[in-house]
Amino acid sequence: MFPRNVWYVAALARELCATPLARRILGERLVLFRTASGKAVALADRCPHRQLPLARGRVLGEHIQCGYHGAQFNADGNCVLVPGQGEIPDHCTVRSYPMRESQGFAWIWMGDAGRELDTGITGIGSFLERGRWGTLDSYIHIACNYELINDNLADITHTEFVHPTTLGNESMRAARGSAEPADVPQFEASLVAGGMDFHLSLTGTRPAPSFVNAFNRVHGAGAADTLDFRLDFSFRAPSFWVFSPAVRASGTTDGREGIGSSGLILITPEDTSTSHYFHKICQDYAPDSEAETRYWLDETCRAFDEDKVVLEAQQLNLKPDDGDARSRVSFRGDWMGFQVRKLVRAMQAAEAAEHPPTGAP
Amino acid sequence: MFPRNVWYVAALARELCATPLARRILGERLVLFRTASGKAVALADRCPHRQLPLARGRVLGEHIQCGYHGAQFNADGNCVLVPGQGEIPDHCTVRSYPMRESQGFAWIWMGDAGRELDTGITGIGSFLERGRWGTLDSYIHIACNYELINDNLADITHTEFVHPTTLGNESMRAARGSAEPADVPQFEASLVAGGMDFHLSLTGTRPAPSFVNAFNRVHGAGAADTLDFRLDFSFRAPSFWVFSPAVRASGTTDGREGIGSSGLILITPEDTSTSHYFHKICQDYAPDSEAETRYWLDETCRAFDEDKVVLEAQQLNLKPDDGDARSRVSFRGDWMGFQVRKLVRAMQAAEAAEHPPTGAP
Amino acid sequence: MFPRNVWYVAALARELCATPLARRILGERLVLFRTASGKAVALADRCPHRQLPLARGRVLGEHIQCGYHGAQFNADGNCVLVPGQGEIPDHCTVRSYPMRESQGFAWIWMGDAGRELDTGITGIGSFLERGRWGTLDSYIHIACNYELINDNLADITHTEFVHPTTLGNESMRAARGSAEPADVPQFEASLVAGGMDFHLSLTGTRPAPSFVNAFNRVHGAGAADTLDFRLDFSFRAPSFWVFSPAVRASGTTDGREGIGSSGLILITPEDTSTSHYFHKICQDYAPDSEAETRYWLDETCRAFDEDKVVLEAQQLNLKPDDGDARSRVSFRGDWMGFQVRKLVRAMQAAEAAEHPPTGAP
Repeated sequence: MFPRNVWYVAALARELCATPLARRILGERLVLFRTASGKAVALADRCPHRQLPLARGRVLGEHIQCGYHGAQFNADGNCVLVPGQGEIPDHCTVRSYPMRESQGFAWIWMGDAGRELDTGITGIGSFLERGRWGTLDSYIHIACNYELINDNLADITHTEFVHPTTLGNESMRAARGSAEPADVPQFEASLVAGGMDFHLSLTGTRPAPSFVNAFNRVHGAGAADTLDFRLDFSFRAPSFWVFSPAVRASGTTDGREGIGSSGLILITPEDTSTSHYFHKICQDYAPDSEAETRYWLDETCRAFDEDKVVLEAQQLNLKPDDGDARSRVSFRGDWMGFQVRKLVRAMQAAEAAEHPPTGAP
Repeated sequence: MFPRNVWYVAALARELCATPLARRILGERLVLFRTASGKAVALADRCPHRQLPLARGRVLGEHIQCGYHGAQFNADGNCVLVPGQGEIPDHCTVRSYPMRESQGFAWIWMGDAGRELDTGITGIGSFLERGRWGTLDSYIHIACNYELINDNLADITHTEFVHPTTLGNESMRAARGSAEPADVPQFEASLVAGGMDFHLSLTGTRPAPSFVNAFNRVHGAGAADTLDFRLDFSFRAPSFWVFSPAVRASGTTDGREGIGSSGLILITPEDTSTSHYFHKICQDYAPDSEAETRYWLDETCRAFDEDKVVLEAQQLNLKPDDGDARSRVSFRGDWMGFQVRKLVRAMQAAEAAEHPPTGAP
Repeated sequence: MFPRNVWYVAALARELCATPLARRILGERLVLFRTASGKAVALADRCPHRQLPLARGRVLGEHIQCGYHGAQFNADGNCVLVPGQGEIPDHCTVRSYPMRESQGFAWIWMGDAGRELDTGITGIGSFLERGRWGTLDSYIHIACNYELINDNLADITHTEFVHPTTLGNESMRAARGSAEPADVPQFEASLVAGGMDFHLSLTGTRPAPSFVNAFNRVHGAGAADTLDFRLDFSFRAPSFWVFSPAVRASGTTDGREGIGSSGLILITPEDTSTSHYFHKICQDYAPDSEAETRYWLDETCRAFDEDKVVLEAQQLNLKPDDGDARSRVSFRGDWMGFQVRKLVRAMQAAEAAEHPPTGAP
């Protein structure tokens, strides 16, 4: 169902602290917290004694204390103290999930034990090393299957209708693959290890409001007449995305520099019909200006809220027999989403082949 | 389950406009709207591309535009535009439901295709042509099966207990069929095409508050001492009703004219345990006075709200094995409701005979 | 599932009045009320005519009148009047449940007909006769299985962690059965008819805040240095409890008298995962002071609200395959809860043996 042998984002790093956080990931209830020494910890959220969620307890130094009878568990999920008795009962443990922190995210391993050691954080991580990522990030919860979010992110043409005041307008029709008139530029796609890269270049166009407004913020009101627009974006299976749009003045060399930004979107399935949506943003033209970066955070978060409304309505409208939630009718603009779904299917098939159902020979 | 080959009310005509309205009818999700040219349209509320409810989109002229990728559908449910591509994909349609507007209601055909052409709007429609119906109407949603509402409307005796400040008092016990003392007048019932007509006449009685108060509004405070009360009401299967009560001074010829009103109640099943309740009112003694008509609207709507409370509590208290929700114990006053249920059963049986289950010889 | 041949508390006596009260007990919907002559009545909450909850009606003298068609039922559940008709239909009855009132509680019999006559109110009732119980009581609803509440009440050690500002602190670790260091006093338990009695004595200890504060209320601020603490509590199957804690100055004879209180906790299953929690309190050192009794009411109710939070989180965190909701790992402090569960199991088994499944030989 869910690819498991992959590092997912469990939380923004700043969400982890001494106050336990209850969160479900891949259908499992976890408690997330940070110990006194700074270690990020994820445990099954269920005391083995009386089943109280450990998230109802509190962090004491390197341990979490159950809120019912005070039993303490360490970061490995082993009970280390039962108040009032000397010995620890057998099997008094909870599952502990490996975690890594990197670039402001706390990543979790929900897969086969041990394999996390030789599995890197998603290839999207390489983008994290390239950009000048600051500290601005966001988290939203979306009540839909994670693949509907993949469809949404792979399908730029919806921006014209869902985000007309921010990220979309008619210029995005180029994403349709085979647009009309036929000479409109199209996205280029290339398969890479673990995902796909997409690229679009438009010259002398009128990009969507967020891009035009950003250009004018920097170069003065009305500076933009027509602009050259460039969008690179990358998908890494099963649900990691980076978007890098940039605009510059068309055919000018007068010093009005181009401006670009990058947004990372990392989806973690909460369950089959709900998802966690993590987001981080940066820009390349005023890297020390938090105001400029916040502009992009605000624009994109506004758009994500619009997507959330659409995605949740879509999820509720799926019929039970929809299987993998694929649509019946396809538009030309769906081709990028199809590539993405194919990569996810391959990942699921590879994991299923390694884990034959119980009872199989 | 639901009779289908019948025109149901989908909406008050005034509910239909350029803002799409999502409404379920007979368990199916529909989007209802009015095109620029004034046509009332009902479509399945689900874009065939990505399943977003079309009610999340907007009406553009004669079409509705999906709020996700901008595909446009005409009143027949055919896709007529996919932004950014020239051709329309095969099978890119949604089911369209025939509609007719008449006397302030938008009627919908949920039945066999084509049969709407030679099926008239319910016989209750003839009442619409007779009365001087104005524009006052109402809509409420009741969370119960439509047949519980039929039971309620066929069973006048509940008014004494549920509507003691408006439509009911002891005078209504005449409806019990075999009242005590035995000489109390009773309802007369007569089978007619597609339904039943009921009639009650009481002389020298003290009718329920709404009727006495109306008489006094017209003829002066305290004008009513005892009155003659007359109630005609008609049922047309499966769930259409008209009520026409009238009062006049008992045995007088002094110019204190009788006053009458008529209320139309049209029930449309939303699903097996929820219903739409449409209502229209008029009166015959001051036909140009909206104030007098509004008096009746207010009195009846107050009573309907009281019924809603009872009916929803009743629905929640039905046990799963109640089958058709029939009661175990009957009172004499139930006889009218039994007639009504028998007519609905016959209608359902006739439809079932025409639609043998798949696989039957 | 639930022991049935036992008197449960249906309501605080003061909850019963002429306004009908809808309450579910052992999964059955009941209407509770008090007639004009003061009789406590419990009937199935469902009119046999049209299934409206009788709790939607009103009490008229010795009868309850259905809010839909006015049928009246007496305390035995027999219909005694159908407005507008002379005879009462056959089988027009609702189940009536025997009730008894005692010491401010209205007890109900949900078991085999007739056996209530030779079954006394729970042995916990003897405590009611001993103490100087006043009128202070409380009711809360807890969304968990009643046996989780038994576990909670049998397991004093949780008080240190759940009630650190009222009923618990480290002194309660004595309840762990085998505490460390080994010379800490322990609870004594003794089987008695229908339940178990528990007793704990601690000398020269620092009892939990509620006890110390009570002592200081009486003897002046700071009067308590170390105190002797004594706790007697009793369980009577399946879910009745009385707690009697007392403190006195350690090794003194200077007139600083000990102070004690008693709390009765009577649990009635609402359904498999929800419970009614009735409570009554008294104290023995200022029996005429409502202020002193209210002190104990406030302290215990505050603690019960804390238990409610824990118990409801625990119930939600139980997995469907938990069977009887027993934990997987046990602590030494669980031994009292195990005794209690064993008594409930025995009671269930005895009832099951008397009621073989239908079809059994």
